[in-house]
Amino acid sequence: MIRVGVYGATGYAGFELVKLLHAHGQVEIGFASSESHTGKRLCEVYPTPLDYPLVAPSEAPLGDVDVAFLCTPHGVSAKLAAAVLGKGVKCIDFSADLRLHDLATYETWYTKHTAPELLPEAVYGLCEVYRERIAGARLIANPGCYTATALLALYPAARAGWLPDGPVIIDAKSGVSGAGVKPTDTTHFCSVHGNLSTYNVGHKHRHVPEIEQELAEYSGHACRIVFTPHLLPVSRGILETIYLTTPPEVTLEALHACYSSQYAGEPFVQLLPLGQGSTLAHVVNTNRCTISLHSAGAPGEFIIVSVLDNLLKGAGGQAVQNMNIMFGLPETMGLE
Amino acid sequence: MIRVGVYGATGYAGFELVKLLHAHGQVEIGFASSESHTGKRLCEVYPTPLDYPLVAPSEAPLGDVDVAFLCTPHGVSAKLAAAVLGKGVKCIDFSADLRLHDLATYETWYTKHTAPELLPEAVYGLCEVYRERIAGARLIANPGCYTATALLALYPAARAGWLPDGPVIIDAKSGVSGAGVKPTDTTHFCSVHGNLSTYNVGHKHRHVPEIEQELAEYSGHACRIVFTPHLLPVSRGILETIYLTTPPEVTLEALHACYSSQYAGEPFVQLLPLGQGSTLAHVVNTNRCTISLHSAGAPGEFIIVSVLDNLLKGAGGQAVQNMNIMFGLPETMGLE
Amino acid sequence: MIRVGVYGATGYAGFELVKLLHAHGQVEIGFASSESHTGKRLCEVYPTPLDYPLVAPSEAPLGDVDVAFLCTPHGVSAKLAAAVLGKGVKCIDFSADLRLHDLATYETWYTKHTAPELLPEAVYGLCEVYRERIAGARLIANPGCYTATALLALYPAARAGWLPDGPVIIDAKSGVSGAGVKPTDTTHFCSVHGNLSTYNVGHKHRHVPEIEQELAEYSGHACRIVFTPHLLPVSRGILETIYLTTPPEVTLEALHACYSSQYAGEPFVQLLPLGQGSTLAHVVNTNRCTISLHSAGAPGEFIIVSVLDNLLKGAGGQAVQNMNIMFGLPETMGLE
Amino acid sequence: MIRVGVYGATGYAGFELVKLLHAHGQVEIGFASSESHTGKRLCEVYPTPLDYPLVAPSEAPLGDVDVAFLCTPHGVSAKLAAAVLGKGVKCIDFSADLRLHDLATYETWYTKHTAPELLPEAVYGLCEVYRERIAGARLIANPGCYTATALLALYPAARAGWLPDGPVIIDAKSGVSGAGVKPTDTTHFCSVHGNLSTYNVGHKHRHVPEIEQELAEYSGHACRIVFTPHLLPVSRGILETIYLTTPPEVTLEALHACYSSQYAGEPFVQLLPLGQGSTLAHVVNTNRCTISLHSAGAPGEFIIVSVLDNLLKGAGGQAVQNMNIMFGLPETMGLE
Repeated sequence: MIRVGVYGATGYAGFELVKLLHAHGQVEIGFASSESHTGKRLCEVYPTPLDYPLVAPSEAPLGDVDVAFLCTPHGVSAKLAAAVLGKGVKCIDFSADLRLHDLATYETWYTKHTAPELLPEAVYGLCEVYRERIAGARLIANPGCYTATALLALYPAARAGWLPDGPVIIDAKSGVSGAGVKPTDTTHFCSVHGNLSTYNVGHKHRHVPEIEQELAEYSGHACRIVFTPHLLPVSRGILETIYLTTPPEVTLEALHACYSSQYAGEPFVQLLPLGQGSTLAHVVNTNRCTISLHSAGAPGEFIIVSVLDNLLKGAGGQAVQNMNIMFGLPETMGLE
Repeated sequence: MIRVGVYGATGYAGFELVKLLHAHGQVEIGFASSESHTGKRLCEVYPTPLDYPLVAPSEAPLGDVDVAFLCTPHGVSAKLAAAVLGKGVKCIDFSADLRLHDLATYETWYTKHTAPELLPEAVYGLCEVYRERIAGARLIANPGCYTATALLALYPAARAGWLPDGPVIIDAKSGVSGAGVKPTDTTHFCSVHGNLSTYNVGHKHRHVPEIEQELAEYSGHACRIVFTPHLLPVSRGILETIYLTTPPEVTLEALHACYSSQYAGEPFVQLLPLGQGSTLAHVVNTNRCTISLHSAGAPGEFIIVSVLDNLLKGAGGQAVQNMNIMFGLPETMGLE
Repeated sequence: MIRVGVYGATGYAGFELVKLLHAHGQVEIGFASSESHTGKRLCEVYPTPLDYPLVAPSEAPLGDVDVAFLCTPHGVSAKLAAAVLGKGVKCIDFSADLRLHDLATYETWYTKHTAPELLPEAVYGLCEVYRERIAGARLIANPGCYTATALLALYPAARAGWLPDGPVIIDAKSGVSGAGVKPTDTTHFCSVHGNLSTYNVGHKHRHVPEIEQELAEYSGHACRIVFTPHLLPVSRGILETIYLTTPPEVTLEALHACYSSQYAGEPFVQLLPLGQGSTLAHVVNTNRCTISLHSAGAPGEFIIVSVLDNLLKGAGGQAVQNMNIMFGLPETMGLE
Repeated sequence: MIRVGVYGATGYAGFELVKLLHAHGQVEIGFASSESHTGKRLCEVYPTPLDYPLVAPSEAPLGDVDVAFLCTPHGVSAKLAAAVLGKGVKCIDFSADLRLHDLATYETWYTKHTAPELLPEAVYGLCEVYRERIAGARLIANPGCYTATALLALYPAARAGWLPDGPVIIDAKSGVSGAGVKPTDTTHFCSVHGNLSTYNVGHKHRHVPEIEQELAEYSGHACRIVFTPHLLPVSRGILETIYLTTPPEVTLEALHACYSSQYAGEPFVQLLPLGQGSTLAHVVNTNRCTISLHSAGAPGEFIIVSVLDNLLKGAGGQAVQNMNIMFGLPETMGLE
């Protein structure tokens, strides 16, 4: 049995993670912490029979666990990760603190970094790309939810050398749980129901530098994206409609063959047959990313539709997949 | 032209009221105040082209208006109503402060009253019942939304002497706007979407004493209700399913004839033919209350389904209807 | 491994059942049949990676399986059950054909019965009540979804002798999947979204005689219910608000103690502590029924709020629970 | 008073139109026809107090009316329009039959044309572009809903000569009423709720040639679009996120000034200030199109977010606006 601790267990991603870990089979939950609900039990915060006590983060018994999940905000996570590693405990962080390799980029988009010395060690936790490195890692930066959706959609094309010099347009739509559990004007039911809205339009959302960093890694050249996030009137799920221009000789069939070959054997990536389209219903409440490929009507112009559940493959499920790899368990354990 | 002022213009009911008043035809809006958005314009707070400036309540030019609408919370309203009347301005209050005739009942269910001297003068603003008194009133207590739905559903039966000694069961379902504009855990999209929940079950909701007061007035004897409010995953609308036991000789046809006669000529009460059922879709975005009558399967046992839009017939529309009566305008003006 | 067959695999309940059986661990799916999608694969009908071929019901290889699930409509099921049993295969039927013990009652509420000779043998498949009989049964009538919600809510009170002579009022709200997969005016998105409506109000819904039959069994005397189903704008889940009058000396604490004792050890019934209320979110996507108890404000007057997922504890999950019992497996296998 | 007839009054657009016409003030409804509900009254088909009788289309008293609205499908409309004009009655058609100037294009995307002789006379009914021609027209082709959203978003840029040679990418999202009133698997509540899906991805939707025709007119050169429609879990409203590349010297401020000048004085186009974003909530239940402009992060790269209510500015409201112009009434009558 692996003993795990969860910091930030009462956020949406943290709660999903606890449910996965509880049912995992090879995991024992050593502690679940919550800043805002210290002293309560999980079943008092969410409609669930799970009754884990919620300890203060500062009193979490780190010495008892093999790995800690940090479902904590950027700024908080990095410092906490340093403490976790200092106790000899492995660490999987959900925040953006350890995702960007370049300190200056981080500080431009976020804030003063609280533990920059960890950046060289952190492994970007996208299993389908970095499986080997994850296996040997102590410290994982779990990808952003929008980012994972985009990267899985573009990774095969990037590896094939088919990303353009010009921008890749990503029209992204997310369910409301992506905005977090804290109630705001934006997440009020009456603001969202029957509505659709955009935010951080163009090149402003914090997942932009993360996507561009990874696409540059996969393709070997700088990549620019245009990124428009929309807030959907659903609780969970992300759908990204991606407009990709490749060299004109690439056909839809060749593109599909490339993706099919890249993702053959991947348990959590589903490439749809040509003619079908990805929908949120393919992935909500699963750890899958589902991808469909479409012609945009002219040679070398394609539309990729990529979907995942932002709380699972986009957060808690991805984290468990990373844990399984780190501890030598079957990668799908607890995720099917 | 009637000049009006609106206190609390950025709550849901206040905003609906401003939209009605703006399009009314015989009304000029002298001021719109907002505690939380002082200094902004309405179009910066809501997605609307209406750009009224939002003044601080304390700086509202009361001297300029003929009537003030108080879309303010209980506790705040009574004191403000006293100030409004003191300037010779008529007043229509949306809060509960002036609805309960009995001071002790108010203070049991709410809080210390801030202007009990106004209670004798306040007229309960349910137009279908108190039309004459409203015409001559300076001060109106606009009914609660759950209350209006229940009272219109039970008024004809009460007048006919058909209310029971035992309890009337009211199973009430409300859209989320009824919970107000302030974001809370309860009104977070992810708490409501795909969900249904109860609150203040049994005899605990603050509209209970208001319903019981009025039913006693209409029937001439004390009435007890059982009241279960539910939070529906819709933005607006209330549906109440009411279980009524009458003397056993009352038939469904007789009940329908009684309601039909009571509400003939009422512009904003729609009695459905037997065999049809009220739905939220009958009333959302209208000032109507729609009522259907059903047999519960045994003599003298009936089910009444009553619906209205909590922000219109349950708040802003009702208030405009009251204003029209108070100022001698056609009662339906600005409401169709 | 138990080999199973599923008739009607492309209805909502059938599809949920196939997903449960696929992930069960001790089950192999021998066939899945579909009248309307014969010849396709399941993944062509639903957004799922499960790719079971869909055979014609008449070509289902009954000889290959140990148990058949009939997710077929009333009228079809009884005849099919006879054929299944005739092959020596056990049978779990989702329709109403075998739920009512009294042939005349069935034919009053439904239609001419197609295999009345099976009625004496069929066991009503509510595990919490009939566990022993289910263990030895060949033929199970899986309960209706509204019925299961009501019966689990009233069973302890009925056994305690606390059901009244007068009617029990059940105000029931169901998600749209309860209306089936066939598109109709009623299930069109635009008819449901933002709306709430009633249907079959009073004593008209076909689950009424089923509830009354079982309550009479549990209480030892005839019971009458008043039943108002509502169509909720959610996909799945049932919430019933039940108004129960007991002898006046029964306190809320005594009622809670009675339920607590009855359901101690039941893996799929969750009794909430006093002060909490059941919500759909407690049960959607689970096999649980969650129950909360509330005072209605006077001695002996109570409100019970009972919730379950109509496709799981109200259909497919209940069926798997029955199968587990019939085959001597742990009752919770594949359901947690 | 203008006397009007409505063919197809029980589709979603037809019903919205009837509501607008009923409340218009200068209109009398001479007839409302329905193929599928002949002989009923409107209040039996929809939850409305409007009780217009629904006549068979063949028995509609055309001689009694000044203008007929055809809320009928393509293929049906053209033939009907010929009959209407033959009686000396003006005609506003909601279908695609008369929108495309080129017969061959129509027959490629749709079907054999039933009245090609009408094409030269038909005026494309986008008021903000063709106001003068509409004033003198007998026959109006009311624009498609996706089309109107796109054209109002691109018209000022097209006139300014800023449309690119390369494709304009239109990522379009529509509420379910756009799919029509007929129940299908696609419009079943359970298919849509909590979901998001695409259809006719790339260059396949029938509004593509209509958009390309008009953009070519406005810009003076051939234009190609990429068009991805999505089905949103809302009842009404369209939001299009449009990716436009202009000459690099065009700044966001210049673009905004261009739009501002084009639409100054337009009662039904709202250009948001820079920094704000269009949402469905801006336009649902109104006849407005709201447009916001955003930088995509590089010179000459812009994102335009355009929204309207598909049943009003995208159908019935636009038609009334056309009627007002045709009959010399104030253009906003009945639409505010």
